[in-house]
Amino acid sequence: MKGLTLLGSTGSIGTNVLRVVDAFPDRFRVVGLAAGRNVERLAEQVARYQPAVVSVADEKALDQLRGRVDLTGVRAVVGEAGMVEVATQAEATMVVAAAVGAVGLVPTYRALESGKDVALANKETLVMAGELMLARAEKSSARLLPIDSEHCALHQCLDGRRPDEVRRLLLTASGGPFRGRPGETFGRITREEALAHPTWRMGPKITIDSATMMNKGLEVIEARWLFGIPAERIEVIIHPQSIIHSMVEFVDGTVLAQVSVTDMRVPIQYALSHPERWGAAIPGMDFSQAMRLELEPPDHERFPCLGLAYRALETGGTAPATLNAANEVAVAAFLDGKIPFTAIADTIQGVLEAEPAPLGRSLEDVIDADRRARERAREVLARQVTARALS
Amino acid sequence: MKGLTLLGSTGSIGTNVLRVVDAFPDRFRVVGLAAGRNVERLAEQVARYQPAVVSVADEKALDQLRGRVDLTGVRAVVGEAGMVEVATQAEATMVVAAAVGAVGLVPTYRALESGKDVALANKETLVMAGELMLARAEKSSARLLPIDSEHCALHQCLDGRRPDEVRRLLLTASGGPFRGRPGETFGRITREEALAHPTWRMGPKITIDSATMMNKGLEVIEARWLFGIPAERIEVIIHPQSIIHSMVEFVDGTVLAQVSVTDMRVPIQYALSHPERWGAAIPGMDFSQAMRLELEPPDHERFPCLGLAYRALETGGTAPATLNAANEVAVAAFLDGKIPFTAIADTIQGVLEAEPAPLGRSLEDVIDADRRARERAREVLARQVTARALS
Repeated sequence: MKGLTLLGSTGSIGTNVLRVVDAFPDRFRVVGLAAGRNVERLAEQVARYQPAVVSVADEKALDQLRGRVDLTGVRAVVGEAGMVEVATQAEATMVVAAAVGAVGLVPTYRALESGKDVALANKETLVMAGELMLARAEKSSARLLPIDSEHCALHQCLDGRRPDEVRRLLLTASGGPFRGRPGETFGRITREEALAHPTWRMGPKITIDSATMMNKGLEVIEARWLFGIPAERIEVIIHPQSIIHSMVEFVDGTVLAQVSVTDMRVPIQYALSHPERWGAAIPGMDFSQAMRLELEPPDHERFPCLGLAYRALETGGTAPATLNAANEVAVAAFLDGKIPFTAIADTIQGVLEAEPAPLGRSLEDVIDADRRARERAREVLARQVTARALS
Repeated sequence: MKGLTLLGSTGSIGTNVLRVVDAFPDRFRVVGLAAGRNVERLAEQVARYQPAVVSVADEKALDQLRGRVDLTGVRAVVGEAGMVEVATQAEATMVVAAAVGAVGLVPTYRALESGKDVALANKETLVMAGELMLARAEKSSARLLPIDSEHCALHQCLDGRRPDEVRRLLLTASGGPFRGRPGETFGRITREEALAHPTWRMGPKITIDSATMMNKGLEVIEARWLFGIPAERIEVIIHPQSIIHSMVEFVDGTVLAQVSVTDMRVPIQYALSHPERWGAAIPGMDFSQAMRLELEPPDHERFPCLGLAYRALETGGTAPATLNAANEVAVAAFLDGKIPFTAIADTIQGVLEAEPAPLGRSLEDVIDADRRARERAREVLARQVTARALS
């Protein structure tokens, strides 16, 4: 029985992780849960899984939690320190890092440091601090397993192969809702249009990232660290049906592709069961129906965010953390109706050009770069808004 | 340096094997060559590779060979005994079994018996005697590696996974030239139409097998033995573009697919280099161009040969050998213009229904079933021709 702790247990990934856990009651014991402020759902989870430790955002949330569930015998903690405690809980052998945003950074690092396997659904962790995380994992012989469909696909295609046998990683992308939309109309894209993703149902931030293709750019950065393959050997391919979740081309010209239904429980179960494969309750692919899979190269002109991500990776140091922070601020501004769709990339580019990219020698360096980039992004945005008002 | 012998060195597979050998001059030494009567090409190969032993069909062919190349220092042998000598040559660690037809059966068995790894391009070997071959390979810890695009694809997708982790093998088929042709016109299919394969250039027998889809049926039988997966967990999927060479679905719902250009050197190099992967001179997939991959279920009504193969596998014993022999006779009759296209399946069905299927306990049992099925097929054909003449 595997002791499991979840960082971000009440979110979309967290609840799907618990559905997988429920499907294999004899294999897992949930020993720790960390959430933010969704105390209602967390209270249900505490009652059901009886973890040894539970963490919430702050004391106020903890009081609310106490009001909903009996915490006798459960260690209750708060904030980043609390999350670190959940991440390093003694009985846990695996930590599912599914908290959204930079908040997951330190707890995930501590989990790896304490030798726990990490199933990683937190994109920021690798985008901001991939090199540090991988070095840390290697040092403590901890495994880092991706929970997202693309990197899970790459992991499966690569399984057991050496990096020098790999010619290219081929990350597939749905292309988002604007794949076929003429470039000259991108300035008029509305919030509602950008939130209507054709194949995956996800939160608003990641849905906008899909629409700008920054999501794929961030995944290129993740893949670079996770699999130790340099950016020039990572390519993005548009695949509107989201059936092929990614591919690996080997030096002998062969390509392996991973195909499955679009259900997050597939990569979650893969990460939780690796190196084994367990029978799944979810339905597999239905090949009794005719299907058509399309592949095409991406259009870097209409989707400049993809190129910005490659550029940040090339620059190195804290540039990917800067890219990520600038993107978060710009996407929030777009969602708030403050800037047009095309200004997202402009903002990120402005920040990348203005910010230095020193080596990220520690998490503190990375967090500092993140903070500075957010400030800079707000400045760039303010200038843009002013310029638009004057024009 | 790997000592290599080739059975069927002058055929399409044999010459492609030597192209791969030429691409890696430091990795292989060709120590044995066996061919039939193509002494012209064999003479060139002997001069170039200076094998320790060479074998041809008979004394007459050997005399012709001597007339073309100096055989000083080369042991020259003939017939099945000669081929066995090449297959068991002391310096060889790997035997490429690429002879066409039942002639490869005994030499391949002897190669496995003497503990040599076998790269197998001879379909009949596994169709006729898969169970015997696999048992023999296991006994001598010899590896059996498939040289054909579909089984090579399955081997790559399965690499290192346990059979109990596999839900289904998904063999892809181009569907051949008659995929979209209405069933009621199948009786009028001409030899020329059947020989025009849409994606692969191959010999006439296998091209007709593709047109009837018996080729895929034979591959189902091969896959059953090669990978130890029962027939009910092997499915055929039509994929007209022949880019996905086959797929494996695992118990967790994930599917791995192997994709590559349609060049026999891909599976040949895989078999020769396994478990390593070497950089290939041949160009890889070109993903800079948009492409469309279609998948659809097969139509068993228009292509009854597929069902006949499953039926032979279900019957067991020597039934697959019977199926294979009946098919060879029927295809030859079709190529000779003696029977219509649809009579191929009718003939095989007639033979399968008439012939007993005892256990194939030895190669002799299998060869005997093969001989009897050929006789029976000729009877069935003669009756059909008479019936058509009278109607």
